[in-house]
Amino acid sequence: MCQLLAMNCNVPTDICFSFTGFQARGGATDVHRDGWGIAFFEGRGVRIFLDPRPSCESQVAELVRRYPIHSLNVIAHIRKATQGAVGLENTHPFMRELWGRYWIFAHNGNLANYAPALDGSFRPVGQTDSERVFCHLLQTLRQRFPDAMPERQLLRGALEEFAAQIRPYGQFNFLLSNGDCLFVHRSTDLYYIIRQAPFALAHLKDQDMTVDFNELTSPDDRVALIATLPLTDNEVWMPLPVDRVVMFADGVYQPAL
Amino acid sequence: MCQLLAMNCNVPTDICFSFTGFQARGGATDVHRDGWGIAFFEGRGVRIFLDPRPSCESQVAELVRRYPIHSLNVIAHIRKATQGAVGLENTHPFMRELWGRYWIFAHNGNLANYAPALDGSFRPVGQTDSERVFCHLLQTLRQRFPDAMPERQLLRGALEEFAAQIRPYGQFNFLLSNGDCLFVHRSTDLYYIIRQAPFALAHLKDQDMTVDFNELTSPDDRVALIATLPLTDNEVWMPLPVDRVVMFADGVYQPAL
Repeated sequence: MCQLLAMNCNVPTDICFSFTGFQARGGATDVHRDGWGIAFFEGRGVRIFLDPRPSCESQVAELVRRYPIHSLNVIAHIRKATQGAVGLENTHPFMRELWGRYWIFAHNGNLANYAPALDGSFRPVGQTDSERVFCHLLQTLRQRFPDAMPERQLLRGALEEFAAQIRPYGQFNFLLSNGDCLFVHRSTDLYYIIRQAPFALAHLKDQDMTVDFNELTSPDDRVALIATLPLTDNEVWMPLPVDRVVMFADGVYQPAL
Repeated sequence: MCQLLAMNCNVPTDICFSFTGFQARGGATDVHRDGWGIAFFEGRGVRIFLDPRPSCESQVAELVRRYPIHSLNVIAHIRKATQGAVGLENTHPFMRELWGRYWIFAHNGNLANYAPALDGSFRPVGQTDSERVFCHLLQTLRQRFPDAMPERQLLRGALEEFAAQIRPYGQFNFLLSNGDCLFVHRSTDLYYIIRQAPFALAHLKDQDMTVDFNELTSPDDRVALIATLPLTDNEVWMPLPVDRVVMFADGVYQPAL
């Protein structure tokens, strides 16, 4: 369907290496030719690059691959269209503001016959099930916490309840961040790895490219990467638990309290 | 303070030539070094490029200058900070969704002691007066037209009433678009030009660069450009009326009905 990629770190880190492998899946080593996008938080601000063209042919993707943007939270997506035409308004990730924070969302899956009652506070611009469920999710969070953003574990719990309501409609792998932390829900495929000292060599699966993270990191750096399928072939990627909303913050997998 | 640039056309057009002159004002030929941004509508979708670095030194600005993105509505801004630190969350243009459409807003001016009562439907993420007034503007529009987007002239009228309320707080030059048309409000400096057949040569003021639009256009093309100060030195740029909200659609200055 689509492929997801996310990064959550304890120090601002660039995603150039991982993006190089991910970009190749957008039409070169895999079939996801219907657009791609990536969002980088810098503080509370967001840079978002979207392109309805295949990532393997995109000049904007070339810029992202070569230009190191340092960020604590990154979400990327390459699309194989299921619902909604190929076009910029249907390209993930999507962005909205809630509680004075930007929220970034990307989805891999297909929700069939899913027509939530939206009250108008968040409305889809495009035609995808993905943007529709993002609007529904934000509406649900605002109804539950109308005044201000709750603390992270309360948010995680609310997201887990929401995901359980959506699950009957179909596959709902998603990535969500407000710049503070990263929430991840797996229905089918999602793996993660945490890179920390002692750092080692990593070799991409989709391109013959190796990086020695010893040369690029400090001993205290911690980087969590999440992807639909492992991006490297010489590291151990762990599957995420199915049907749970998992939280990453400061490059750490945060257990539910 | 800042500089604004907008384009509204009847056929998707790239802004590379005008952006070349505009980009130079971000730290090279002028003092606006505190970030820049540009938003391109493609249908209902938006591509937005933001950078808190000076545009004259920005790799992202280089991409925008060289990569022709064709759009009917473009809004760009280069910043000289008055309120709010230099940072991504304070970089214009700002984006929100209302009535299932994205809205893009950029402001040049300074609103003193401006603290509107915001109901939470749109909240600023950063610290600028500009994002605050954008949130207030969208809240006001939604209160007045709760269910759906009204037709353009009704919107223009509502924006004109809103601008009159804001004017006592200070300079309020702004650009606003939903991808259909472009709304412009001038307090101090804003000029426009409409390029249409017979096309001629244009020479940039900020760089020694000339374009012959005869070679790039079709006879029916119509392009309206709006800028804080004229971008070319061999064309006649017209000042916009002060304290009015003017609408451009299909590259035409649309009179108020």
